[in-house]
Amino acid sequence: MKKNVLIIGAGGVAQVVAHKAAQNNDILGDIHIASRSIAKCEKIVAEVLEKGSLKVPGVLKAHALDALDIEATKALIRETGVEIVINVGSAFVNMSVLRAVIDTGVAYIDTAIHEDPAKICETPPWYGNYEWHHGDECAAKGITAIHGAGFDPGVVNAYAALAVQDYFDQVDSIDIIDVNAGSHGRYFATNFDPEINFREFTGQVYSWQNGEWQTNQMFEISRIDDLPVVGEQTTYLSGHDEIHSLSRNLPVKDIRFWMGFGAHYINVFTVLKNLGLLSEQPVMTAEGLEVVPLKVVKAVLPDPSSLAPDYTGKTCIGDLVKGTRDGAAREIFIYQICDHKESYDEVGSQAISYTAGVPPVAAAILIARGDWDVRRQVNVEELPPHPFLDLLNRIGLPSRIRDGEGDRALEFTQAEDGRWSVAGA
Amino acid sequence: MKKNVLIIGAGGVAQVVAHKAAQNNDILGDIHIASRSIAKCEKIVAEVLEKGSLKVPGVLKAHALDALDIEATKALIRETGVEIVINVGSAFVNMSVLRAVIDTGVAYIDTAIHEDPAKICETPPWYGNYEWHHGDECAAKGITAIHGAGFDPGVVNAYAALAVQDYFDQVDSIDIIDVNAGSHGRYFATNFDPEINFREFTGQVYSWQNGEWQTNQMFEISRIDDLPVVGEQTTYLSGHDEIHSLSRNLPVKDIRFWMGFGAHYINVFTVLKNLGLLSEQPVMTAEGLEVVPLKVVKAVLPDPSSLAPDYTGKTCIGDLVKGTRDGAAREIFIYQICDHKESYDEVGSQAISYTAGVPPVAAAILIARGDWDVRRQVNVEELPPHPFLDLLNRIGLPSRIRDGEGDRALEFTQAEDGRWSVAGA
Repeated sequence: MKKNVLIIGAGGVAQVVAHKAAQNNDILGDIHIASRSIAKCEKIVAEVLEKGSLKVPGVLKAHALDALDIEATKALIRETGVEIVINVGSAFVNMSVLRAVIDTGVAYIDTAIHEDPAKICETPPWYGNYEWHHGDECAAKGITAIHGAGFDPGVVNAYAALAVQDYFDQVDSIDIIDVNAGSHGRYFATNFDPEINFREFTGQVYSWQNGEWQTNQMFEISRIDDLPVVGEQTTYLSGHDEIHSLSRNLPVKDIRFWMGFGAHYINVFTVLKNLGLLSEQPVMTAEGLEVVPLKVVKAVLPDPSSLAPDYTGKTCIGDLVKGTRDGAAREIFIYQICDHKESYDEVGSQAISYTAGVPPVAAAILIARGDWDVRRQVNVEELPPHPFLDLLNRIGLPSRIRDGEGDRALEFTQAEDGRWSVAGA
Repeated sequence: MKKNVLIIGAGGVAQVVAHKAAQNNDILGDIHIASRSIAKCEKIVAEVLEKGSLKVPGVLKAHALDALDIEATKALIRETGVEIVINVGSAFVNMSVLRAVIDTGVAYIDTAIHEDPAKICETPPWYGNYEWHHGDECAAKGITAIHGAGFDPGVVNAYAALAVQDYFDQVDSIDIIDVNAGSHGRYFATNFDPEINFREFTGQVYSWQNGEWQTNQMFEISRIDDLPVVGEQTTYLSGHDEIHSLSRNLPVKDIRFWMGFGAHYINVFTVLKNLGLLSEQPVMTAEGLEVVPLKVVKAVLPDPSSLAPDYTGKTCIGDLVKGTRDGAAREIFIYQICDHKESYDEVGSQAISYTAGVPPVAAAILIARGDWDVRRQVNVEELPPHPFLDLLNRIGLPSRIRDGEGDRALEFTQAEDGRWSVAGA
């Protein structure tokens, strides 16, 4: 049984993590939040207190920390006595935080793959470039390190594992579909830091097809689906973290990720990219000033955190899984619908941050309870999906399933012997 | 009889002016070219010599000059002994060059309205803000100052005057239509300095309708015409210099300017404008660097002068004039077609520079010959159009007319008594 949590980061996702951890502090214990800007942490602490999110009286404290500083991170872990670190800071700090966690013997959770700021779209599998180098050491030292425990990657990996385990004899394809059908009411904005956001679309698109890596260009391949609640949506084959672990851990020959974009978003992106305004390479103005165009684009776009109060509509993220069961073809869609305004009313963040921030808290609760304290390095699909999805049903992210028999809540039950089952599998 | 010419400026239009002046140096005499960068002037001189453009052996010389420096400009005028100044430099230097011209008693020609760099789209009539303040002084001192003697403004003003004088009893409307149906083969580029180019479209659109100024937004109002050679074209109501003098000098209640834009150009422009990337107001990057977005856009776009070698296709610029003659409704289109590649082969510039650069040389020749040495300040429509258009027919910009009787060359004849007539009027 581990307890006491350190949250690293103070952005939109960290804010959700803080609120949700506070709502479950009877299990999680003390809550600490650290980022380079202690002011941002203090603001989150104040908001959590203001909303009365702490379930029971307890510690909720802000700290200043440069998470690239391994020794400082280790010192903070020891000083606070935390046993679980939820890293939702910049994708550039994962490896230094993981080092600090291993050296101090506590548990680790992150939600996005490590990135080197100088590299875009490294060779697949991405986890093999950084995270998986630490697998043997984690196993030897009994370190629980869960990578990619947000929504996507994270919940969608659990959906994939559940499908393989409970719904199919053989899975042929998993298409992960991520649609934000919400509206922020601005001419154009990115939902995360534009520098990070555009990085996802400027490189090669890797997908796993016929049991090998395939490359495409962004916006080259699209599909149209009639999705629950959000209706007909066009999505585009995109590169994404989860493909890089699912392709190793599940016996499925086609694993693809599809992200929804409106025609307007694609148009603006295409204009900026073709003009060279998304470039990270500096240009020289006629006046002799050296400028990185992407940083100027970032400066003129709305601050992503300013969008939440006006965000309306819903997200829909799920796994469309095809295969066979008892010799017959089967197709299911396991998914989650999240409402921007309800998210904002509850925790002050829109649905994109909400869906990313609630799952790592569920993972922390499962580590605290012991279910997921596996003392080795894992991706989410290597862990039992049932307690995770059951817990998410109860703490804000209820899942549903649509198949030949209709559309219904994805309900789990645990027998007295501890074994889980899911209704309608 | 005036002679010896000083060309101010060393851009694409100045290059055309230098070539055409050289081709007519038997009439114009010595040719001097001056800009802040003497290297640019020397490059033009070298190209004129290389093409053998000098009609007769004579002076062709480059000078360094900051045309905002009135005393330096006066000194250069006196030192070179020029009697005609063709100002095709930046629109920001007109007033200082005019001052130097008046003080030295020589003749002045420009092709675009004066602009204050700090102001966009001042109140109409634009000539009333700067140029016309000098009318009395020019008349008193006998200074010939011809404003707006490019193609548009310039040749289109002569078309308007010709229509009023020779083709109609009453003109009801003049619609000036400017279409570049050429292609530079790049994703996106502006044909002039992006900073100047975009200034034309970011402010109010002024037009003269029902005898008063009307304001619209750019791209708010469009028309489609089936034009000679270039075919069906969509153009947009735009603000332009010539409306601001024609509305004073001709008895016509509707005078509008229409510029052609492709859907792609408008899309890119709209995206950049809506994102704030065409702003001249500095923004601050996350790293604390103060940057003017428009200057970064300029830095990533192709250098306009780099487009000429690959430019193909044609421009079509003309006046669609409607009114009555002998009690019957009449409609004519007087126009000019210019080919990008032919222009480049002749003078090393594309058709947009060519059409702007040949007319001021024609104006200089008419001053040298005496036809247009009127010893006062004028816009082109106040001068006899026949010798101007006749000369342009002979030196590279032949005009045509399309009316109910067909499409034909616009041919002029001068009787022994000196009176001009135009065929088919």
